[in-house]
Amino acid sequence: MTTQKIYIGVDLGGTNIACGAVNEQMQLICKASAPTKLPRTVEEVCADIAVLCRKVAAQAGVEFDSIEGIGLGSPGTINCETGMLEYSNNFHWENTPLRKVLQEATGCSRVALGNDANVAALGEFVAGAAKGCRNAVMITLGTGVGSGIIVDGKLLTGHNFAGAELGHMVIRADGPLCTCGRHGCFEVYSSATAIKRMSREAMQAHPETLMWKLCPNLEQISGKTVFAAAEQGDKVAGEVVDTYLNYLACGLCNVINIFQPEVLALGGGVSNEGQKLIDRLEQLMDPMQYVHDKSKRTKLKIAGLGNDAGIIGAAALLLQ
Amino acid sequence: MTTQKIYIGVDLGGTNIACGAVNEQMQLICKASAPTKLPRTVEEVCADIAVLCRKVAAQAGVEFDSIEGIGLGSPGTINCETGMLEYSNNFHWENTPLRKVLQEATGCSRVALGNDANVAALGEFVAGAAKGCRNAVMITLGTGVGSGIIVDGKLLTGHNFAGAELGHMVIRADGPLCTCGRHGCFEVYSSATAIKRMSREAMQAHPETLMWKLCPNLEQISGKTVFAAAEQGDKVAGEVVDTYLNYLACGLCNVINIFQPEVLALGGGVSNEGQKLIDRLEQLMDPMQYVHDKSKRTKLKIAGLGNDAGIIGAAALLLQ
Repeated sequence: MTTQKIYIGVDLGGTNIACGAVNEQMQLICKASAPTKLPRTVEEVCADIAVLCRKVAAQAGVEFDSIEGIGLGSPGTINCETGMLEYSNNFHWENTPLRKVLQEATGCSRVALGNDANVAALGEFVAGAAKGCRNAVMITLGTGVGSGIIVDGKLLTGHNFAGAELGHMVIRADGPLCTCGRHGCFEVYSSATAIKRMSREAMQAHPETLMWKLCPNLEQISGKTVFAAAEQGDKVAGEVVDTYLNYLACGLCNVINIFQPEVLALGGGVSNEGQKLIDRLEQLMDPMQYVHDKSKRTKLKIAGLGNDAGIIGAAALLLQ
Repeated sequence: MTTQKIYIGVDLGGTNIACGAVNEQMQLICKASAPTKLPRTVEEVCADIAVLCRKVAAQAGVEFDSIEGIGLGSPGTINCETGMLEYSNNFHWENTPLRKVLQEATGCSRVALGNDANVAALGEFVAGAAKGCRNAVMITLGTGVGSGIIVDGKLLTGHNFAGAELGHMVIRADGPLCTCGRHGCFEVYSSATAIKRMSREAMQAHPETLMWKLCPNLEQISGKTVFAAAEQGDKVAGEVVDTYLNYLACGLCNVINIFQPEVLALGGGVSNEGQKLIDRLEQLMDPMQYVHDKSKRTKLKIAGLGNDAGIIGAAALLLQ
C-alpha cells in the first residue's frame, strides 16, 4: 500500500462514467469506466460510480477509506454549495441532491461537484495546456461549444453556478436559432456540429466537391473530412473552412477581449486539427486583437489532456 | 483633526481631474476638481493631482501624511503590478511610470492604479448598486461602452491588464466598423454615440418625426431626445428605441450568460432613463435568459453613484 495522497475524479457523461485516481501532483495514475445506461435513477448511477471509485483506489494501491475525497464533473447546473444538480438536459434529474446520494453510495463524506465543461478547464489548468497560469479559458468544440474559465486560480461559476456559458454568447444577432432559444450564438457557428452542417450544405449545393469522394455518406461527414478536402485544394471545402474559422476567430477574440487569459486552450473534435488550426486562427485574429504588443497577447493552445481532463479536473475540485 | 482612516481617490479624465477623500466605510466625505488641460506632461498633471490630494485631505480634517494612500483611475491600459500606464488613447503617455511620478509628486508612497472603467465598477461594488455582492458587472453606456467586472470580490483585469473590454465583444459579425478595428462590436450598437447616430439617421430619412421638434439641430441630438419622442408616441423614434434596446439586451444577455453576476449595473448617459429602461430591458431579455428560474437571475440595476463611482472606486483600489 502506498502512502501518497490519492484523489478520485469522476467524469459523469451521458454515455460513459470515467473514473480515475490522481496523485498530489495531479497526475492520473489509473482509470476505469462503465456505461451510464440512461435512463436510470441517480441512486442507480451513483451505485455504479461507487464501484468504479473502489476499483481505482485498489488499482492505485490505497485503502478506499484513506482517499482524500471524490470530485465529480457532470453536465448541467451544479450548485457547488448545496451539492444539488439543479438542472440537467441529459439526465432529467432536476433538483437532485447529487452530492448526498454520492456520499451515501460511496461512504465517502468529502465529495466535490462541478459542471463538466468547467471541470475539464480545471484539468487543463492544473495539469494540461494552462498549467502554471492564474488566468485561463478552455473552449471545447464538440457537439456544442463548452467552456470553463479560471480567474485568479479559481473556476468562474457565477453567483447561481450557471455562468461560463461562452457558447451562448451571440456573435451574430439575428443568426440561426440556437438550442438555448437565442439566435446566432457562438455555438451555432463554431461547434463540431456547425462545421458538419456547413459541410453538408456545401456538398448538397456542389456535387463536384472532393468531400463526396472522401465521405460518400452525408450522415458520416465530420470536421476532419472538410479540413482534409480543403488541404487537398478543394475550393468548396476551402470556403467552408474559411467561413467556419472566421466565426471561430470572432468568438475567440471576444473571449480574449473579455478575459485576456494567459492561455486560451481549444479542445473537442475540431482541435484534432492541431497546430495548423492554431496557426490559421492566429493569422485571422491578428488584426482583431485589442492588445497590439504580441508578447503580451493570450497564448492560443490545443488542450493537452484529451478525455482525461474531465477526470483530473474533477479530482482537482477537491483542491479549489 | 479626525482620527478616522482616510483614503484618497482620484478620477483622472481627459477633461477633468476629480479627487475625493473617502472614509473606511467607503463614503465620500469631500471632493475637489481641476481641469486636466491636455496636452500636458505626466509630471505637470501629477503636480496638479498632488495639490488636489492635499486639498481634500485638509477638507476631510486629516494631516496629509496620515492618509492611508492614494488610488487613481485612468483611461488606458494600466499595469497594476509595475505601476506603468502602458497605453492611453487620451494622454499619449505610452509606457509612462505613472505610479512613480505620482509618488514623487505627492510624497505618498502608497499609490494604487487602475483602469477608469474598472475603477468605476469597483466603486459601485463597494458603495453603490452592487454593494454586498461577490460578483458584479458594470456597463457604462457613454461615448463608448465601458465595463468593469468583479469576480469573487476582485477586479478582473486579465493577465496583461487589458481585459474586461465588454464593449469590444462582437455581437453582429460583419456589422459596422468599430474604433477598435473589428466589426459589429457591442459598443457600435449600444453606446450613447450609437443611439445618437441611429436617431440622426432616422431624422434624415423622416422629416415628419417629432424628434425634429424636440431637437431642431441634428448635432445636438441626445439619447434623451429619442426616448422622449418615443414616449410621446412618435413611431420613428419608437423604432430607433426598439432597435437600440434589442441590441443592448443582446449584449447584456451575453454578459449574463458569461458571468451570471449577482448584479449587472448600467451607468452613463443612457442610464438616466432609469427604471423604465430596466423594465423594458428585462422584458426583452426574459426569453433570452439561460437561467429559467427568475429568482436566480442576475439583477439588472441602474448604477447608483454617478460620477462619484470613479473617485470611490479609486480609493477602494487601496483595499483590493
